[in-house]
Amino acid sequence: MFASVDIGGTITSCAVASGAGQMLAERTIPTLSHEGPDAVLSRIAATINELAAGQGQKLAAFGVGVPGLADFHRGRTLFLPNLPTGWRDYPVADRLSAAVGCPVFLLNDARMAALGELWYGQGRGVKTMVVFTVGTGIGGGVVIDRKLRLGPLGAAGEIGHQTILPDGPLCGCGNRGCLETLAGGPALMGAGIRLMKSGHAPRLYDMVEGSADRVTPRLMAQAAAAGDSSVREELVRAARLLGIGVSNVITVLYPELVVLGGDVASAVGPLLIDAVRREVRERVRLFPVDKVRIESSALEEKAALWGGVALAIARVKQASGQPAAEAI
Amino acid sequence: MFASVDIGGTITSCAVASGAGQMLAERTIPTLSHEGPDAVLSRIAATINELAAGQGQKLAAFGVGVPGLADFHRGRTLFLPNLPTGWRDYPVADRLSAAVGCPVFLLNDARMAALGELWYGQGRGVKTMVVFTVGTGIGGGVVIDRKLRLGPLGAAGEIGHQTILPDGPLCGCGNRGCLETLAGGPALMGAGIRLMKSGHAPRLYDMVEGSADRVTPRLMAQAAAAGDSSVREELVRAARLLGIGVSNVITVLYPELVVLGGDVASAVGPLLIDAVRREVRERVRLFPVDKVRIESSALEEKAALWGGVALAIARVKQASGQPAAEAI
Repeated sequence: MFASVDIGGTITSCAVASGAGQMLAERTIPTLSHEGPDAVLSRIAATINELAAGQGQKLAAFGVGVPGLADFHRGRTLFLPNLPTGWRDYPVADRLSAAVGCPVFLLNDARMAALGELWYGQGRGVKTMVVFTVGTGIGGGVVIDRKLRLGPLGAAGEIGHQTILPDGPLCGCGNRGCLETLAGGPALMGAGIRLMKSGHAPRLYDMVEGSADRVTPRLMAQAAAAGDSSVREELVRAARLLGIGVSNVITVLYPELVVLGGDVASAVGPLLIDAVRREVRERVRLFPVDKVRIESSALEEKAALWGGVALAIARVKQASGQPAAEAI
Repeated sequence: MFASVDIGGTITSCAVASGAGQMLAERTIPTLSHEGPDAVLSRIAATINELAAGQGQKLAAFGVGVPGLADFHRGRTLFLPNLPTGWRDYPVADRLSAAVGCPVFLLNDARMAALGELWYGQGRGVKTMVVFTVGTGIGGGVVIDRKLRLGPLGAAGEIGHQTILPDGPLCGCGNRGCLETLAGGPALMGAGIRLMKSGHAPRLYDMVEGSADRVTPRLMAQAAAAGDSSVREELVRAARLLGIGVSNVITVLYPELVVLGGDVASAVGPLLIDAVRREVRERVRLFPVDKVRIESSALEEKAALWGGVALAIARVKQASGQPAAEAI
């Protein structure tokens, strides 16, 4: 049996699954990250141990996804922008491993989602694909010949930090004009608040009763569908900028498939994916792009949790010397 | 023995080499592309046959590089922007194969240069790297785990067609603001001519005696070194835009090595590579980038010719079922 956890800024999803890739039990707990890594990891270990005990089986391996930069090879979190500084260079894998009694493997959550999509989602049967995870930030993962591209630290695939506008807004990473600053959740919400405050989004205004902090990408998509054409325009504009990022990656890698996941992509829905597809057709002109499929996530908010299962299974297979076509 | 040809818009380089990767004989001939593919390929076949006869050995395979889009798997040229339309969907591999009596493998010249760099240049001992070929156009190749990424048609790696300025100049490919439009030879020459004509580049003016059609990136670099600070500034500006393209690829793939080749990169020299390195340090902030080496080509204008040798050797090894760590 295998365990998986997707640690988020607010909530943490926990699961145990069979080696055949069947989810056996799941539970969502609050992260309560202000309590620091010791407390958070104790709670996670207790939850996983309880889920495992409920199945009466021993854990073989445990995949853990974290929102930020982690050292895959040393099992340490390096920089998690949405969690307190106590996580800097913290030995997450060792601590969890001691508490659950099996090897623990640590990966950035977007890379883990890409692995989930590869094994259990849109990527089944696909050799080369790129996964964009569009949420507050924009993360990603690159898969070539069914192998997740890791690079040093497991940090390859940071496709949300491509420069799309050289003199664009300052990004959390320190660069300017990263895709994430232009098409991530806060960029959309900023546009929604601005339009609402300036009287250009009456439907959105009604939905949130004029309250800026209730504006979300999902409500913006609903307002656009209900007739707020300016909101629709801004959502499409952001999606087209996302489309530039997608086009660049297609130009470099010519993958079979691009998957658009993450809560913002899911909330905005067809409006987003259609605009991305249009932009790609306009931008990638040097080679035929009609066979590059661009699809929404099949696993949605559970992609990373599934990815943790895949990660755990893959590492156990590798450790036991089994031929792993799907290595990591 | 193996043969290699690098077909350019103006000149074509031909060579035969040993299986150990030693160049045995080389010859450069004019391409004379206006005569059409039949005449051009006859001349190439005659040259290769003559070089091979001089060595008294039989050819085992022949790698051919072309400046544009080719179908690697079908051995046909699809679209060569600098050659006449007669090359569209032309069976280059079959025609040459019949004339030289060995299998012929066709690849885009920049991808072939990347393969040359991988086997015989900066890429020896490197697992993952990206090669930029900066000339009139900007081409490239992506190598992951010592395997050249091909994709459908062998068209992956078109890193010169990343969008760097979403509303930038119209590119030959039909997109706007491609890296190639901002940092390729014509962009530099345009800036040089403009500065010279407006009296801001007295050194360059003297060097070319005021004649716009004598302005080259190499003379611009010399003028910059001789004191034309505005020329220097424009060369650096273009190199920084190239640096954005390099940053984006590093962000996506986190390679060990980036190689900057091509005649423009070679002509502008350290001014270009230093500006690219600076831009990458400023742009790639999410993970440590100090271990990603950025180097100029080791093989310079012969990179593609060496790549043809590598391509021929690799394909013969693969066909004979030999374990090819360096497959393509």
